[in-house]
Amino acid sequence: MSYEVISETASFGGVQGYYKHTAETLKCDMRFSVYMPPQAQEGKVPVLWYLSGLTCTEDNATVKAGFQRVASELGLMIICPDTSPRGEGVPNVEEYDFGQGAGFYVDATEKPWAEHFKMYSYITKELPSVIAANFAAADMEKQGITGHSMGGHGALTLFLKNQDVYKSVSAFSPIVAPMKCPWGQKALPGYLGDNPNVWAEYDACALLRKLGSVDTEILIDQGLADNFMEGQLKPELFEDACEATGQQLKLRRHEGYDHGYFFIATFMEDHLRHHAGVLTA
Amino acid sequence: MSYEVISETASFGGVQGYYKHTAETLKCDMRFSVYMPPQAQEGKVPVLWYLSGLTCTEDNATVKAGFQRVASELGLMIICPDTSPRGEGVPNVEEYDFGQGAGFYVDATEKPWAEHFKMYSYITKELPSVIAANFAAADMEKQGITGHSMGGHGALTLFLKNQDVYKSVSAFSPIVAPMKCPWGQKALPGYLGDNPNVWAEYDACALLRKLGSVDTEILIDQGLADNFMEGQLKPELFEDACEATGQQLKLRRHEGYDHGYFFIATFMEDHLRHHAGVLTA
Repeated sequence: MSYEVISETASFGGVQGYYKHTAETLKCDMRFSVYMPPQAQEGKVPVLWYLSGLTCTEDNATVKAGFQRVASELGLMIICPDTSPRGEGVPNVEEYDFGQGAGFYVDATEKPWAEHFKMYSYITKELPSVIAANFAAADMEKQGITGHSMGGHGALTLFLKNQDVYKSVSAFSPIVAPMKCPWGQKALPGYLGDNPNVWAEYDACALLRKLGSVDTEILIDQGLADNFMEGQLKPELFEDACEATGQQLKLRRHEGYDHGYFFIATFMEDHLRHHAGVLTA
Repeated sequence: MSYEVISETASFGGVQGYYKHTAETLKCDMRFSVYMPPQAQEGKVPVLWYLSGLTCTEDNATVKAGFQRVASELGLMIICPDTSPRGEGVPNVEEYDFGQGAGFYVDATEKPWAEHFKMYSYITKELPSVIAANFAAADMEKQGITGHSMGGHGALTLFLKNQDVYKSVSAFSPIVAPMKCPWGQKALPGYLGDNPNVWAEYDACALLRKLGSVDTEILIDQGLADNFMEGQLKPELFEDACEATGQQLKLRRHEGYDHGYFFIATFMEDHLRHHAGVLTA
């Protein structure tokens, strides 16, 4: 449960920190960032998890998404984990969409991935324990989750499977149906083997149809100039699943916006207000 | 005067672009970024130049400083140039504070630097011509200039020497007296030779004392946890020069903030409002 401070820097009246710890679940050292808003000086604050996409680390959103300003205003702690186990002892492949940088927020069962690639357990169990043990201001009764692309898939699936933990959810251009897109059709069998019933445990559309609607609105933003929208992201599949289950969904499609961090930064404020609206209600 | 589009991405209702051109002044290819606010669809908009610090390119502020949101609100075009000539034919040294990435916004006279290192002329003449010729919305009658560290030195000196061009100025943790700090005491003789009278042409404190006060307030933000403040930046020297000349100065010192982009992002909004206040008055 111990951790090491890499850096702590003043930002919008709060502190943007980078930290490192040895993750038992992943059997490697992992980095994560925490934005601590000024309100944390006076008491507990809600916690929002931001899960990044393929190739990213804890750093991308921390420096590019511009969440600190509104997190400071609303009093939200923002935690950005890395996207996979890392390091020399951890298996990897050349491709950008599998292995290191592409953990897909699952618990792998297949060799050689199963030994390290337990991102589902790491994000839902080990890292929250590290936060609870070391960041006294984190109100673990008030957690929300968001993410981008592969991390949007992570946010939606972790939320649906852990509704007792996460009270609010949103996503930026998420993979909503990994069973029905090339990225997922590579990652799910690669990490989990051949059984589609196991894949369905990590597919937001399948999970929503299985578990039924939840009592909170889901916010999703999607850029219409996003090159991955048609082939990989397929927001219409989540729209269908929400309609079939009666799930409240605010899916916004934005003309001209692509898949990158200028898109995320543009709509970050709306997401933080969405989460704060639930978590501080 | 031609240029090439590297990328153009929607951002806060406007467009964040990256561009490339062959700079005659510098005898190499150069990149720059332009944020075009939504107001540029309807007419001309003021132009704010952002000059970066040592080791930076046009990219650092563009992705980390978070200026797009407020530039979109205020209708400011933001231009970020690179900090030196670049490329294989351009001389360089191993050090981070001289050569490529460290042009210091001067016109070098010493070998081997004089052939390429003409950043003063590039920023004040060639790049503005490229902008005026290719970005019809740029109101070249309404230009302001800001920058960080070495780029803060650039902003202050270019402003003082070109008051007919730049109407507003500000700086984040600037080098205010390169003649009196190690970075400048290396760069000025290295690029300009042994004559202190030539160095003084690129020293904000010396220029202000020589030219006298200007009829606009200068805004400077400085973090008190900035490791370079005492040895390199010495804001008190600019305070003295302002007091001696009757120059209006708003110098704000911020407890806990360091020299990095989390500091810049925190106070960027105030700088954009400072410039808009002058440029759109």
